[in-house]
Amino acid sequence: MNRPAILPVLLALSSAAALAQSATQSSVPPAPTSVFGYKDFSQQAKWDAAFQAIPDSKLAGEHLKTLTKAPHWASSPEDYATAEYVAAKFKAAGLQTEIVPYKVLLNKPVKIVIEAFDATGAKLMSGPSPEHVDPTKDGGDPFQDDPRILPAFNGSSPSADIAAEVVYANYGTPADFKKLADLGVDVKGKIVIVRYGANYRGIKVYDAQKAGAAGVLIFSDPEDDGYFRGDKYPKGPYRPDSAVQRGAVQFLPIYPGDATTPGIASTPNLPDSQRIPADKIQANWPSIPSNPLSYKDAAPILEALGGPAAPHAWQGALPFAYHVGGGPKIMVHMHLEQDTKLRTIWDVIGTIPGTDPAEKNDWVVAGNHRDAWVYGAVDPNSGTAAMLETVHGLGDLLKQGWKPKRTIVIGSWDAEEEGLIGSTEWVEAHPTQLRNAVAYFNTDVGVSGPNFNASAVPSLKQFVREVTREVPSPAGGTVYDQWLKGQTDRRNESEDEGGATRGARPAGRNGGTAGEIRIGDLGSGSDYTPFLQHQGVPATDIGSGGPYGVYHSVFDNYNWFIKNADPTFVYEQQQARVFGLEILHMADADVLPYDYQAYGTQLKGYIEAAKSRSSAMGLDFAALESAANRFAAAGVVIRQRQLTPSNTATLNTALRSAEDALLDPAGLPHRAWYKHTIYAPGEFTGYAAVVIPGVNEGIDAIDKARTQTQIESLTAAVNRSAAILEAAAK
Amino acid sequence: MNRPAILPVLLALSSAAALAQSATQSSVPPAPTSVFGYKDFSQQAKWDAAFQAIPDSKLAGEHLKTLTKAPHWASSPEDYATAEYVAAKFKAAGLQTEIVPYKVLLNKPVKIVIEAFDATGAKLMSGPSPEHVDPTKDGGDPFQDDPRILPAFNGSSPSADIAAEVVYANYGTPADFKKLADLGVDVKGKIVIVRYGANYRGIKVYDAQKAGAAGVLIFSDPEDDGYFRGDKYPKGPYRPDSAVQRGAVQFLPIYPGDATTPGIASTPNLPDSQRIPADKIQANWPSIPSNPLSYKDAAPILEALGGPAAPHAWQGALPFAYHVGGGPKIMVHMHLEQDTKLRTIWDVIGTIPGTDPAEKNDWVVAGNHRDAWVYGAVDPNSGTAAMLETVHGLGDLLKQGWKPKRTIVIGSWDAEEEGLIGSTEWVEAHPTQLRNAVAYFNTDVGVSGPNFNASAVPSLKQFVREVTREVPSPAGGTVYDQWLKGQTDRRNESEDEGGATRGARPAGRNGGTAGEIRIGDLGSGSDYTPFLQHQGVPATDIGSGGPYGVYHSVFDNYNWFIKNADPTFVYEQQQARVFGLEILHMADADVLPYDYQAYGTQLKGYIEAAKSRSSAMGLDFAALESAANRFAAAGVVIRQRQLTPSNTATLNTALRSAEDALLDPAGLPHRAWYKHTIYAPGEFTGYAAVVIPGVNEGIDAIDKARTQTQIESLTAAVNRSAAILEAAAK
Repeated sequence: MNRPAILPVLLALSSAAALAQSATQSSVPPAPTSVFGYKDFSQQAKWDAAFQAIPDSKLAGEHLKTLTKAPHWASSPEDYATAEYVAAKFKAAGLQTEIVPYKVLLNKPVKIVIEAFDATGAKLMSGPSPEHVDPTKDGGDPFQDDPRILPAFNGSSPSADIAAEVVYANYGTPADFKKLADLGVDVKGKIVIVRYGANYRGIKVYDAQKAGAAGVLIFSDPEDDGYFRGDKYPKGPYRPDSAVQRGAVQFLPIYPGDATTPGIASTPNLPDSQRIPADKIQANWPSIPSNPLSYKDAAPILEALGGPAAPHAWQGALPFAYHVGGGPKIMVHMHLEQDTKLRTIWDVIGTIPGTDPAEKNDWVVAGNHRDAWVYGAVDPNSGTAAMLETVHGLGDLLKQGWKPKRTIVIGSWDAEEEGLIGSTEWVEAHPTQLRNAVAYFNTDVGVSGPNFNASAVPSLKQFVREVTREVPSPAGGTVYDQWLKGQTDRRNESEDEGGATRGARPAGRNGGTAGEIRIGDLGSGSDYTPFLQHQGVPATDIGSGGPYGVYHSVFDNYNWFIKNADPTFVYEQQQARVFGLEILHMADADVLPYDYQAYGTQLKGYIEAAKSRSSAMGLDFAALESAANRFAAAGVVIRQRQLTPSNTATLNTALRSAEDALLDPAGLPHRAWYKHTIYAPGEFTGYAAVVIPGVNEGIDAIDKARTQTQIESLTAAVNRSAAILEAAAK
Repeated sequence: MNRPAILPVLLALSSAAALAQSATQSSVPPAPTSVFGYKDFSQQAKWDAAFQAIPDSKLAGEHLKTLTKAPHWASSPEDYATAEYVAAKFKAAGLQTEIVPYKVLLNKPVKIVIEAFDATGAKLMSGPSPEHVDPTKDGGDPFQDDPRILPAFNGSSPSADIAAEVVYANYGTPADFKKLADLGVDVKGKIVIVRYGANYRGIKVYDAQKAGAAGVLIFSDPEDDGYFRGDKYPKGPYRPDSAVQRGAVQFLPIYPGDATTPGIASTPNLPDSQRIPADKIQANWPSIPSNPLSYKDAAPILEALGGPAAPHAWQGALPFAYHVGGGPKIMVHMHLEQDTKLRTIWDVIGTIPGTDPAEKNDWVVAGNHRDAWVYGAVDPNSGTAAMLETVHGLGDLLKQGWKPKRTIVIGSWDAEEEGLIGSTEWVEAHPTQLRNAVAYFNTDVGVSGPNFNASAVPSLKQFVREVTREVPSPAGGTVYDQWLKGQTDRRNESEDEGGATRGARPAGRNGGTAGEIRIGDLGSGSDYTPFLQHQGVPATDIGSGGPYGVYHSVFDNYNWFIKNADPTFVYEQQQARVFGLEILHMADADVLPYDYQAYGTQLKGYIEAAKSRSSAMGLDFAALESAANRFAAAGVVIRQRQLTPSNTATLNTALRSAEDALLDPAGLPHRAWYKHTIYAPGEFTGYAAVVIPGVNEGIDAIDKARTQTQIESLTAAVNRSAAILEAAAK
C-alpha cells in the first residue's frame, strides 16, 4: 500500500552517477565508537561489520525476479508460491519458520464494466481499457499481457450495477464536497469522479458516502504521477495513459485488518459466530461501490462534463478545462461483480530465539508485506528482496556464532493491500507477547530510487539516524550523508517531500533541529499501524524512493524496476543492511535505545500547536501541559540514566512500559481499535499521521466537550508514562 | 500591447449578476463635498454630474463595432479609416482636431513558414496553422476568415531563412538560459522555443540573442491563457489551440518608438540623414529572427524534443513531459519574409484650449492607442470606444458652457503595438510643451471584464482612488467599492494579480495601507512610457479586466467581446466616466492634486528595500537616505500648503517642476532615452516596473561602482525635487 511521495526528477538524475561510483565506494565506513544503548560498542561493531558483508545485490535481484514473475494477489496460488519461496529462504538462514494462515474477507473482481454516456445517450467511453503500452516503442512491456492479471478494482468495494449522473469532486475531501455544495451542485445519488492525491483513497469513498453519493470513480490525474511529472513508462518512470492505480477503499482509519474480526485474529478455525457477517459490516467497508480508472478512461468523462467551471485548484493536467458537472447530464454505468468471501492468506513468520534470560521474551519484530495488486516489483517486493538479504545476513551471523539477546521475529505479511490484514491479524493473535515487543521495523516500498527516507516514533528517530551512519551509500559516503544531502537539496529546490503531519508545528514536525535529518511521523498505509497504533510497539518505517508513477498498476514490474529504480540492485543491498542493523542493534543493545527526551520535546510541541489553533474554543490545557512538562523532564533524567545504567533489565522494562502507558484502552472516539494517544492515521487523511489525535480531531470537529475529555485522557496517559519513567530513574 | 493579468474565473462569474443589476444601480452616487486640489468642490461636483450623464453604453458599443469591423494594422488603409472615424467624433464634440502623420519603420510579413523535422528528417509540423475554430460549435467565430488578416508575426523581427536545431528555454529569462547551460545544453546557433509569460516577449528575444541563439519561437502555453485556465473560445474566454499571440519584439526597455529616430520625432519630412538606416539599427531591434506560435503548432515540436527532462517548473500544460532538447536533433526551418520599410501612421489629436491665463499652457493629456494586430476589440478598441464616449461627454459640457482652466489634449495613438510608436513620436515632437503637461492619463485594454484596475505614479494614486468614488459600478455601489471588494476577494483566494514590481517592498509596492486599494506602479507596455519615463509627466493607466485568453489573436474581436467581456457595454460606460473625471479634475483643480507625502513614503520604502538587499555590497546610502527624508518631509509640508494655498499659480509650477526634477538628463546606463530616476520598465522584465532603476539594476549586475554612481544621481535628483518643494512651501 504505502503511498509514496513523488520525488522530484532532479534527484533521480543523480542515480546513474551514483551507480557508476558504487563499485568503488560501497566499502563499509568506520564503525562508531559509541552508540546509544551500548555500554561498550566494540563487540557489536564487529558483528555489524560481519553482517554488512553478507547482503548481496545480485541475490536481491534474483529474489525480486522470482517473487514478481507472476501476478500474486493475496490468496491466489501465485501468492502461496511466494510464501513458500520466502519460507524456504528463512529456513535456509536457520530461522524457525512457519506459514501462518488466516481466513479473511476479500473481494475478487469477476466482471468490471465502466461506461459513460453523454446527454444525448451517445457512448463516451467503455472500460476499463486494458493496461497497455505500445510494444514497439521504448522496448514495450513484457508483462502486460499475462492472463492472470485481475481487472483493476478497489478492495472492499461492494458489487453494484448502477447508472447515475456523474460530477467531479476534485480529491474528494470534506472541503471539496462543501465547495460543490457552494457551487450549487448536489452529489446526492450521483456518481462522483475524484482524482488521486491529497488523501488515502478509502477516505475519498468515506467522504463521498457521507455526502450521499451513489458511487465513486477514482482516476489518476497526469498531474499527480503522469506526464506532468515526466516521461511516461516505458520511456520514463511515470504513469502511462492506461495504467490504473488499484487499491483498497477499506475505511482504514476506523479499523484495519479483516473487516469481519476487529480486535481478534481471523484464525482458520475461528467460528462464524465470532465474526461480523459480510453483509453486516458497516464500520470499515463502504456501502457504495467504487472503482479506479486510468486517465485514458477518465478523460472522455471529464471532458464532457458541463456545469460550473472547476475552481482553479481543481484543474488537473488533462488538456481541457475541467468542469464540475451539473449541466447536461453525463451518465455513468458501473457494473461491478465482486466475488466477496472468506479466503485464506498466508503470513510467513521466522524466528531467531533470544538467549539473554532477562530479555529473551522481549521480541524485536521486523516485517514487510508480500502480496501485490499485480506484480508488485516496487510495492512491496523490493522490500521483500531486501528483507530476504537481511535474513541472509542474520543467518550468516548465526553460523559465525552470534546469539541475539532478544528474540527476533521476521514477518512476511499477506493481504496488506486489502487493509493491512496479514499483519493486523497476526498482531491481534499475539496481544500478550507484543506487550513486551521492543520494536517493530517495517519496510514496504523498499526501493523505487536512490533517496533514503524514514518515519518513526520520536523515541526511535535518533536510533534510525545512527544506524544509517554505519551503512555505505552507492552514491558515496554513508546513507546518512546522502539522506541529509537529499533533504538539503530538496529544501533548496523548495520541493515538499509530502506526507505532512496534521497538527504538528512545522519546526517540530519531523523531530529534527536545523541541519539534522528530518524524520516523518507514522501515519498509516503500511503494516506498522497495528503494532504501533493498536498495540503500542515503538516502530519505524524505511524505504528508498525516486520517481515512481506506476504505483499499483500492471507496470510496477521487474522491467520497470530495472529500467528506473535500481538496475544493479545496489540500493536493495543498502536497504538490506539498514534494515538488518536496526534489528541487530535493537536485539542486542544493553539498554533499549529509546530517546524519551526527544519524545518529550516533540509532545510539548504538539500540545502547544493544538492549544494555539484552538484558542477560540476555551479549552483547558493546564493539566496536560503540566503532564507534558513532567514527561519531558522525566525524559531528560531517564536519558542520562540510560547512559550509565545499573539494573538494565528493570530499566528496559520501564522504558518499554512507558510507551505502553501512552495507550488509552478506551481508544479514540468512534474508532476504538486505535489505542495510541499520540499517533493515529487521520480520520480524514488516512495516510498522514495526526498527532495527539483525540485532541486534534476534537478541535477539527469544534466539539469542546469531546475535546476536553480527550485532553483528560491524554493527560492521564502522559502522567502514567511519566510516572513509569520517574520511578525507573530513581 | 499592455499584457493583461489573467484574472481568476471566480471574479468573472460575478459579471452576469452585476449586469443584471446595472439598469437599476448605475445611478450616480452623491458627489463628495471636498476633493483634494479644490478650494470649493461644489461647482465641480455639478460639472461632474453633468458629465457623467452623457457617456452612453449603446454608443460605446457602436464605436467598438465600427472600429473593429476589419483588421486594422498600423499603416493599413483600414487603420486610416479608424483614424478618420475617431477624428470625426472628436470634431463632432467640438475639439480642435488633426490627424498627425509620422513615417516610421515597420515590418509587414509577406510570407511566414515555420516547419519542424525529427531526427530522421520526417516532418513534424508545417505552419503557422490558420487561426481557426470549429464553425459548427458554440457559434463558431464570424471574423476568422477575413483575407485581410496578416499572418501571425513579430513586429521588429528581421527576415530570415534559417534551419537549426531547436531547444526549449522556458520563459527565456537570463536564469532560464543559465539553467540550460547547467544542464549542458548549448543554445549557440540554435533556435530556442520559449513560452509566453513572466516577461515581455521582446526581452525573451533580447536574452536569447545575448545567449547566442539563432532564432526564437514564442508559443502560448495553455497553462498561461489556454484550457488550463478555463474553457476555450468560443465556448469560453480562453485561448483556443490555433490562436497566436502576435506582438512586437522591439527592445522596448532600451528605447521605444520608431527605431530609426530615438529621441526625435519621425515627422514625414524628417531627412534620412537624421535617421538611423534600417540596416544599422542595433540597440532596439533584434538581429535574430523570431515568430509567435500557437500551442497547436508548438506541441509537435515540444513533444519531439529529447535530451534532459525539463525542470519541473518549466513543465507547461501540454499533455506530455517537456524536455529541453539536446538529444536527437529536432530541426526547425524559419522562413520569414518581412517587408520592412518606412510607413505612414496616423495619430489623431483633439484639443480643448484652456481658459485660465495662468494655467492654459499646462496640458492635460489623455490617450489610447487605436491600431490593432488584427481586430483589437479588447486591445485597444475597448479603450477607444470608452474614450470616444469621454470625448462625447466633454463635448456636451462645452455646449453647456463649461470652460476648462487647463488645455486638454486627447490622443488616439497609432502603431502602439509595434513599440509605442505613435505616442513616442508625438512626445518627442513636443518636448517643450510637455514640460508643462500636468498629467498623462492612459487607457489601453479598456474593458475585458468587470474588474477595475489602475497603475499610477505615487503622487496620483490617491487622485485615482478619489475619482473612482464618484462613479457608479454596474455591479452596485461605486467603482471604488467594487475595486476594493475585488482586491479583498482575490487576497482571500490567495490569487496574485500579477504585475509585481521589482525592487519594491510588498508593503510599499502598491502605495496603499491595509484596507486601502492597492495601485500598481507603471512599468511599460503602453503609451504612458514616453510621457512618464522620458518626459517626466505624472501618469496613470486604467482598465477593467477579466478572463481574457485571446490577446493579440484573431479572436480578440467583437464576437469575443460581446460573449465574454461586456455584452451590454456598461463597463465601457463606466470607463468613459472614470477617464473623463480624471481629465476634468486635473484640468480644473485649483491646486494640482499631487500627493508628494505619499511619494516620499514610497520612495523611502524603495530605498530601504534596495539597501537591505544589497547589504553585502558595501554601498553608501547615507546621502540618499538624507535626501529621501528631506523629500518626504517637504512632501508633508507641501501637502498642507496645498490644502490652504495662497498663490496657486506659483505653487502649481513648483508641484509640476518637482516631478520634472526627478529626471536625470543623462538617462539610465546603456539606455539613456529613459530619464526618470524612480521608474522604468525593467531591462529584463519589460512590462513590470523596476523602481529606482539605476540603483536596482546596478545591484542586479553586482556592479558596485556603477550602483554608487547611480545612487549619487538619484540623490541629486531627489534633492533637486525636495528643494523645489521646500521653496514652494515657504
